[in-house]
Amino acid sequence: MSSTDSLDRLAAVIESRKPAHGGDPDKSYVARLLHKGPDAFLKKIGEEATETVMAAKDCDHGGDKTKLVGEVADLWFHSMIALAHYGLSPADVVAELVRREGLSGLEEKALRKAQARESEG
Amino acid sequence: MSSTDSLDRLAAVIESRKPAHGGDPDKSYVARLLHKGPDAFLKKIGEEATETVMAAKDCDHGGDKTKLVGEVADLWFHSMIALAHYGLSPADVVAELVRREGLSGLEEKALRKAQARESEG
Amino acid sequence: MSSTDSLDRLAAVIESRKPAHGGDPDKSYVARLLHKGPDAFLKKIGEEATETVMAAKDCDHGGDKTKLVGEVADLWFHSMIALAHYGLSPADVVAELVRREGLSGLEEKALRKAQARESEG
Amino acid sequence: MSSTDSLDRLAAVIESRKPAHGGDPDKSYVARLLHKGPDAFLKKIGEEATETVMAAKDCDHGGDKTKLVGEVADLWFHSMIALAHYGLSPADVVAELVRREGLSGLEEKALRKAQARESEG
Repeated sequence: MSSTDSLDRLAAVIESRKPAHGGDPDKSYVARLLHKGPDAFLKKIGEEATETVMAAKDCDHGGDKTKLVGEVADLWFHSMIALAHYGLSPADVVAELVRREGLSGLEEKALRKAQARESEG
Repeated sequence: MSSTDSLDRLAAVIESRKPAHGGDPDKSYVARLLHKGPDAFLKKIGEEATETVMAAKDCDHGGDKTKLVGEVADLWFHSMIALAHYGLSPADVVAELVRREGLSGLEEKALRKAQARESEG
Repeated sequence: MSSTDSLDRLAAVIESRKPAHGGDPDKSYVARLLHKGPDAFLKKIGEEATETVMAAKDCDHGGDKTKLVGEVADLWFHSMIALAHYGLSPADVVAELVRREGLSGLEEKALRKAQARESEG
Repeated sequence: MSSTDSLDRLAAVIESRKPAHGGDPDKSYVARLLHKGPDAFLKKIGEEATETVMAAKDCDHGGDKTKLVGEVADLWFHSMIALAHYGLSPADVVAELVRREGLSGLEEKALRKAQARESEG
């Protein structure tokens, strides 16, 4: 099964944990975050981004790469909970990434911006 | 090509931008970040996580949901650049997410931890 | 002027850069951020927090400590711009820190919470 | 007492919590974080930065400003724990901020960089 199929399936599990779909905050971590509301899962996105950065820095000094995989998994997982809350899905995110990749010249535009910043630095 | 393996395909594009694979920092944004090294793309993960949180907060007050999709796309995209740098891929992340989802009792453990924190708060 | 009230003096400089106080976005970085509005300086808080974490991790491996000082300075500086925008000041933050430190038992409460989290982890 | 005097005093309290100075991880939250090592308090910097951003966004919609003060206090407090761990102090940070403010033309340089980024965006 491809990565995106798996993401779609995981998104369906998250969707089923919504309070409106019967998710029980006393039995499910996802249901509990969704029940608590945006600040609960948005805060986790900031936390997991920081932990991703720390795990990556550790990899520069012989750290365990599986730890980095775990932190990115946490980051993407909590992103997906936020997407679900706002009626969005990983498929929307992937579609946006594909759209950008298909736009010729897009990467070049990002590059020119980055080069301009650097030459000013 | 179906949309289902889009993340894997995007990972292949990122892989081709590595300096060792001929990626040109003067022509590609991804090649440029990989050429500059970890701090350049790790910093972006922190930035894009913050922008994701801000876009989500705006959605709570009538903000544009497509902006949130764009910020999560930025966050995942720069995560994928980091993964590539460390010899990892989105398939590794998705496999970890699938593994966790398949582990019965996993969500329950996360839940008990979260409940304990709350009762202490 | 002694160095002891430097934060208060810096806050006064930031205050003078507010558009309502004649700050000119074409001549002052602070005036420009305040003119652009919250997302501009809030985004910087997330960026500088990430750069602080990266500089600290580098210190664990022989990195330059003055770089860490510079990143924390950036983090506090942009926090102070946010405080100014919302009619607050570093004196409010310091008063809160002093208040907490004076509350007997406060650190012990934070400790018990942290221990509970750990024992559950 | 000025803001900076208070910060210096708080830094002395943090210093006394270092394991080498007799800080007891079973009695003090600060001693416990210092005992656990960098990742424990660096992670908090990322968390508190995100909570600062969320509290600020809430202020844009009638949220409680004292909550924002509390989050910035958390952010600065954990920054100070990190500074202490690396043999640094808030006085070093304030001295850097004063140095920058005293450098004529510094804000103008930051401004030109920011303007260049914007014109490219």
